[in-house]
Amino acid sequence: MRKILLTIQYNGKNFAGWQTQPKKRTVQGVLEDAISNLLQEKISLFASGRTDSGVHAIAQTAHFETNSNIPAEKLHFAINSKLPSDVAVVSAKEVASDSHARFDVKKKTYMYKLYASDVNLPLYDGFALRVHPKVLDKIEEMKKAGESFIGTHDFSGFCSANTEVKDFVRTIYDLKITQIGPEINIFITGNGFLYNMVRIIVGTLLDVAEGKIHASQIPNIIASRNRTLAGKTVKPDGLYLWGIRYIK
Amino acid sequence: MRKILLTIQYNGKNFAGWQTQPKKRTVQGVLEDAISNLLQEKISLFASGRTDSGVHAIAQTAHFETNSNIPAEKLHFAINSKLPSDVAVVSAKEVASDSHARFDVKKKTYMYKLYASDVNLPLYDGFALRVHPKVLDKIEEMKKAGESFIGTHDFSGFCSANTEVKDFVRTIYDLKITQIGPEINIFITGNGFLYNMVRIIVGTLLDVAEGKIHASQIPNIIASRNRTLAGKTVKPDGLYLWGIRYIK
Repeated sequence: MRKILLTIQYNGKNFAGWQTQPKKRTVQGVLEDAISNLLQEKISLFASGRTDSGVHAIAQTAHFETNSNIPAEKLHFAINSKLPSDVAVVSAKEVASDSHARFDVKKKTYMYKLYASDVNLPLYDGFALRVHPKVLDKIEEMKKAGESFIGTHDFSGFCSANTEVKDFVRTIYDLKITQIGPEINIFITGNGFLYNMVRIIVGTLLDVAEGKIHASQIPNIIASRNRTLAGKTVKPDGLYLWGIRYIK
Repeated sequence: MRKILLTIQYNGKNFAGWQTQPKKRTVQGVLEDAISNLLQEKISLFASGRTDSGVHAIAQTAHFETNSNIPAEKLHFAINSKLPSDVAVVSAKEVASDSHARFDVKKKTYMYKLYASDVNLPLYDGFALRVHPKVLDKIEEMKKAGESFIGTHDFSGFCSANTEVKDFVRTIYDLKITQIGPEINIFITGNGFLYNMVRIIVGTLLDVAEGKIHASQIPNIIASRNRTLAGKTVKPDGLYLWGIRYIK
């Protein structure tokens, strides 16, 4: 058996998330059907991690095993010919038989996109979260608050209840905020993320922008491990799985 | 009667263009229905110009006359409450009774979005034109070719046949090409544009990138007024009406 690692992009709007679910249109389901159909064998995908309904991916990764001998560098063109326009395989490569798309992840980066406007803007619909124009004056406060997340912490307070995880310690390597015009992008890189962790961190940064929380309180909020002290879980529309690193 | 000027954003994907057509979903039709319904009077919109099916607008403008006395600064919120998520009124202001959204236009800017990739990328689907990755090495040639469009020229060779226009002379004030990662944006500002003119200019710049035309040939191609010497009409997906200026 050969093992193939795919890099996958999708628009999450019309998917019920990554993971296969009965009677729902999922990214995993659509991809497994397309690849199984192409290779004429039943294949199973293992992703770097799940993404929720409405969440996008610039570069998700997933592996599968196959008996096919189609060269990896041609495989993604063949798979794409079987896919709808809202999901695509960007590249494919053959990897070691003992490698694993989830267990081998060293770093994961998510991006969250905000736009400042008085009205909902059609070209951002489903792709970003609208925030009050005043948020544009608070970027420096958000950056200051963002720095406090960097490091190794118990993030129990930044995790939704619906989780099977036992270990809540994660390391954030970087949190970067960029702004161009009305658009604010928040990039968060870590060794892994708890359920809804990125969306709760963004909600907390918005509490800082709105003056509900002061940037200096973030270390105490993390230390409290109390979900109610952190910000709300912002909607999935603005969330993008930006990339996965397997080498440190 | 008061005259109100609207600034409008839309995602062109699911519209048959700006102009009202029987039995088709158009931006003008949806907006006129919403505003007429809100104000309980039959209103007619006059835009800065039409946009074709699939073309987007960051900031289209259009005016209408009304007997309503709702303050303009509140009007766009009320109109938006009646609109679907793919079109929105970004702002509204009262303007002089002798002003006109089309006849008073001084400058118009369009943006055309390209992305360089071996495969169709879902997050650009409907929003940009895919080009070969090699185009990224030809940005300087495209910029050089772009400069030749600036100025006042007879653009007969850059106009689709389906037009009622008699005067083919237009002035291009600026043509700017930016690149960030795989994304290339072409901004073209002029006093007006012929039918498909922006899409044919972009098609011609791509011919330069692909080596079919040399940048130095552009002045002769313009002077020839021969449609067949210019590039093809690229698809509408990447085209955005970026903004309208009424003051020089």
